[in-house]
Amino acid sequence: MNDIDVLISEVGPRDGLQNVARRMATPAKLAWIDALHAAGLREIELASFVPARLLPQMADAAELVSHACTLPGLTAMALVPNLRGAEAALAAGAHKLTVPVSASPAHSLANVRKSPAQMVDELRSIAALRRERAPQTRLEVGLSTAFGCSLQGAVPEDEVLVLAEALAEAGADEVGLSDTTGMANPAQVRRLFTRLRAALGERAGAAHMHNTRGLGLANCLAAFEAGVRSFDASQGGLGGCPFAPGASGNVATEDLIFMFEAMGQRTGVDLEALQAARAALQAGLPGEPLYGMLPAAGLPRDFVYANGRRPAVAAGAAHG
Amino acid sequence: MNDIDVLISEVGPRDGLQNVARRMATPAKLAWIDALHAAGLREIELASFVPARLLPQMADAAELVSHACTLPGLTAMALVPNLRGAEAALAAGAHKLTVPVSASPAHSLANVRKSPAQMVDELRSIAALRRERAPQTRLEVGLSTAFGCSLQGAVPEDEVLVLAEALAEAGADEVGLSDTTGMANPAQVRRLFTRLRAALGERAGAAHMHNTRGLGLANCLAAFEAGVRSFDASQGGLGGCPFAPGASGNVATEDLIFMFEAMGQRTGVDLEALQAARAALQAGLPGEPLYGMLPAAGLPRDFVYANGRRPAVAAGAAHG
Repeated sequence: MNDIDVLISEVGPRDGLQNVARRMATPAKLAWIDALHAAGLREIELASFVPARLLPQMADAAELVSHACTLPGLTAMALVPNLRGAEAALAAGAHKLTVPVSASPAHSLANVRKSPAQMVDELRSIAALRRERAPQTRLEVGLSTAFGCSLQGAVPEDEVLVLAEALAEAGADEVGLSDTTGMANPAQVRRLFTRLRAALGERAGAAHMHNTRGLGLANCLAAFEAGVRSFDASQGGLGGCPFAPGASGNVATEDLIFMFEAMGQRTGVDLEALQAARAALQAGLPGEPLYGMLPAAGLPRDFVYANGRRPAVAAGAAHG
Repeated sequence: MNDIDVLISEVGPRDGLQNVARRMATPAKLAWIDALHAAGLREIELASFVPARLLPQMADAAELVSHACTLPGLTAMALVPNLRGAEAALAAGAHKLTVPVSASPAHSLANVRKSPAQMVDELRSIAALRRERAPQTRLEVGLSTAFGCSLQGAVPEDEVLVLAEALAEAGADEVGLSDTTGMANPAQVRRLFTRLRAALGERAGAAHMHNTRGLGLANCLAAFEAGVRSFDASQGGLGGCPFAPGASGNVATEDLIFMFEAMGQRTGVDLEALQAARAALQAGLPGEPLYGMLPAAGLPRDFVYANGRRPAVAAGAAHG
């Protein structure tokens, strides 16, 4: 983190592709991951370690992780919903595991058939396994439905905090908050992340915001102002339950990086090279709708990266 | 402003329609304006007072203003690019005039064939006319390209401030800042509005943000945090030079109001009634693409307005 101010964690290969009906071929995934890395992304959520019969599009998880481990400076992250997934991810050499835990009991039962308390136990088992097999591997929790749940409605903030503390106590190195259903607003984001940081200190983790109702970047800004320096995003806004054209689920990596770089916050990512990664994604999933406003509008005239660099190709003045 | 915390100024009938190729029939415009008023909007930019041969779609400006003046509690606003337009708008009974002045000399010359300094003189003439004919009429300036210009590139912040002060001195009651080209970022918005408020005090005006590169709501949030309490927006993101599907120019009124209400800031607007106004707009311009994420996603389950009211129809739980 010496040369960057904000870490953008690209979740497209896992979160994005998991929410796409079609399966992306392994060589195309590898090309996309290489292009993301070449653009400067330093953390990528590569795959979910679940039985291939449940999620066929994640059957190549181990191969993707192994490959990503060869890319210099990259944190190869894998989602593991349970102990068995963690075993497989550790065997594949993942540098970081992320465990999804729902703050909403209704969502937790619907999603993993376990209560939040049972997931704390699962996390404790995963942490024990990690200590035994690969103590250098980082263990992250993404606390989903932390800002509201489409099944249960509002989720009490005190419950979110209690659960976050229990997960940190059970062995999570970082606990982040996810707006799984696009219900968060900036005031709530600021309040909840401020409380999370007060409670967990260095263990307070990433903001995972959705753009379902258009507030994705505003919520990231609010989290940034509350001190958060790690953000999930998905190239082209892929995944995250989109249900209308333009209404992506995940925040688009392109737009989020543009916002931070324009604000003077170094992400380490080159937006022009990121455009090449977008082409690699599109090549692997022809016709799949991709979102993001920056790719459509292009960089503004006179744009300067936070580190003072100017784009290689001068931005056009064609747009009004 | 006693019962609201944030004023949303709907600019669709002027800014939106001016950027649509087709002409909306006058009865359809009236029905839309009535629906916007019924939804609770208390300031509407109705039309531009320019020669009908230049902008045929604004030929009914006087009729729209006269009608809007019959709607209780509504501030009937008109754009006037020059003294002649101001004469016509005052004759029609407009409660508030808004004069567009470009901070970028290149944009100013291209747009109105006058330099910014010449526009200060024009504003002084308009202010004199207002004092003589209708001293109760408010006079606002929207300072366009305040955050950058697609013709000239960066616009020095000191120049923006000097121009804003000159305009206030020349008689503007309010001077707001417009991100005409979608080049603003939240750090810049916060900095510039903070300086504007320090320089102009009560005369610091509205934020007019575009969503060209996806930062529209984040920029509105930054302006709000700098103390701004008046925001322009356009229903369905109509207008403001969109150049890609989903890439609206103007911030969508629906999304902006949702953000503020969710944050606990009262706008006075009912989002369900605003949906009826959207239908009126769509009826008047069949097939015209409308943007906005909230209309696609719907209100979140358990949504509560800032004043404590719940939506009449409970929000669905269909979306994940």
